[in-house]
Amino acid sequence: MTTAAYQGETGAYSEQAVFDYFGPSVLPVPQPTFDAVFETVSSGECDAAVLPVENSLGGSVHRNYDLLMRHALHIVGEVIVRVSHNLIALPGVQLADIRRVWSHWQALDQCEQSITRLLPGVERVQVYDTAGSVKMLAQEQRRDTAALASARAAAFYGLPILRAEMEDDPTNYTRFVVLSRTPVAVTSGQPCKTSIVFATRNAPGSLFRALAVFALRDIDLTKIESRPLQGSPWEYLFYLDFLGHQTDAVCARALDNLREQATILRVLGSYPRAKSVQ
Amino acid sequence: MTTAAYQGETGAYSEQAVFDYFGPSVLPVPQPTFDAVFETVSSGECDAAVLPVENSLGGSVHRNYDLLMRHALHIVGEVIVRVSHNLIALPGVQLADIRRVWSHWQALDQCEQSITRLLPGVERVQVYDTAGSVKMLAQEQRRDTAALASARAAAFYGLPILRAEMEDDPTNYTRFVVLSRTPVAVTSGQPCKTSIVFATRNAPGSLFRALAVFALRDIDLTKIESRPLQGSPWEYLFYLDFLGHQTDAVCARALDNLREQATILRVLGSYPRAKSVQ
Repeated sequence: MTTAAYQGETGAYSEQAVFDYFGPSVLPVPQPTFDAVFETVSSGECDAAVLPVENSLGGSVHRNYDLLMRHALHIVGEVIVRVSHNLIALPGVQLADIRRVWSHWQALDQCEQSITRLLPGVERVQVYDTAGSVKMLAQEQRRDTAALASARAAAFYGLPILRAEMEDDPTNYTRFVVLSRTPVAVTSGQPCKTSIVFATRNAPGSLFRALAVFALRDIDLTKIESRPLQGSPWEYLFYLDFLGHQTDAVCARALDNLREQATILRVLGSYPRAKSVQ
Repeated sequence: MTTAAYQGETGAYSEQAVFDYFGPSVLPVPQPTFDAVFETVSSGECDAAVLPVENSLGGSVHRNYDLLMRHALHIVGEVIVRVSHNLIALPGVQLADIRRVWSHWQALDQCEQSITRLLPGVERVQVYDTAGSVKMLAQEQRRDTAALASARAAAFYGLPILRAEMEDDPTNYTRFVVLSRTPVAVTSGQPCKTSIVFATRNAPGSLFRALAVFALRDIDLTKIESRPLQGSPWEYLFYLDFLGHQTDAVCARALDNLREQATILRVLGSYPRAKSVQ
């Protein structure tokens, strides 16, 4: 049985991503932190990890980009999950009873306008995890508090959903990458994506020249993200995704060309594209 | 007297930035949320706002980029603050007494290795604000808990510093922008920076063509950041800073050129550059 590590408690969106990617026969292995998720796969304790890297509203999960750089794992796949937050409370609790909402800061952010409309003046309290906020509610039996989390978390802890679809914007998707100790074998002709990370000398036009290696070969970029290069304030690492496999002739030439300019270049993986969400 | 809104409690790093930028005679006005900071200036209640947009370790403060886009304020300046976190506890508390550390999630992240080394197995609890964690500690008088915050917050709440410089990486700086309802008048010859936001059609090479308008005129980019375009999953807004003033002939031509290609283009402001931190 495949074992797949994820960050969070049972009922987390990451657990949903594990099932969506591997199907029902996978064994999801919850971990307290993203660091622990990486360690579990690096050490061989789990076969794979499923890791959120980008939310369509909140942007990139920066910590995970930094961890990708620090560990020698390969991206072997991606999966996109529709995120819908529910207001969850103890049985019988009404909106008027609620003084406080618990959730992960990103869920609180994504539901900000709904919270203000439904629960004016309520206190927002950040906790470590969306599903964890439901677990705490069930354990502490607080009738003045609600949690924001998945319907899966509500069902697991046996608590009712007071309001569904709390997110301010319904186009709320999270993209997860699947990590493994060995690269994936891709069937020829399968539409692929490649993720790389690179740094260039801090000189005018250096990012432009780096992007030229893709633009001049009509390689389509699907994402670019800059991250501070640790130890060098205001210098950047660029995380870039493009369509194609690193072994495709044109992509291989682009990467060779980039390697000439870059001070750092690492290919994180080539893997089959997820189905589009649109 | 100039009034300047900032997010957080007294002792927040943002309050430090207010004093660093305006000098000792400013009146800093604390606000509970970033949204409230924007409102306070838009409504005329405060003259200016000081807002964190980027940390040299943690990356951009995405929410504030989104808020810049939603409000019609001008960036009129920038200021860079060295962030140094202190482990703060009640008088007489020793490391061995501590079971729990409170702080903002970003401070907890930045001190992760120090916490693990000094306080193995301690629980990390996210609270809404670094200075707020010290306020809570002073109010609740908990001897099993420490907070991570500025020396300024420790002094304000009269609590001792158990360990200084808790951040894992000493190159920890936060860049703040100063916002106003009216653009700044810049003295000719003063080194300036301009911040813009734009979107392009999602087509191969579109970012490359956008960057060409700067590269081909030798305009130096100091930062590029992509943000999801709300309502259009996996399409992006680009936030870009370049050296020069929007009224400099070469910069004005570059912006005209970009306007031809862009689906959205807004100049957030031209303003004098902060002194470099290096």
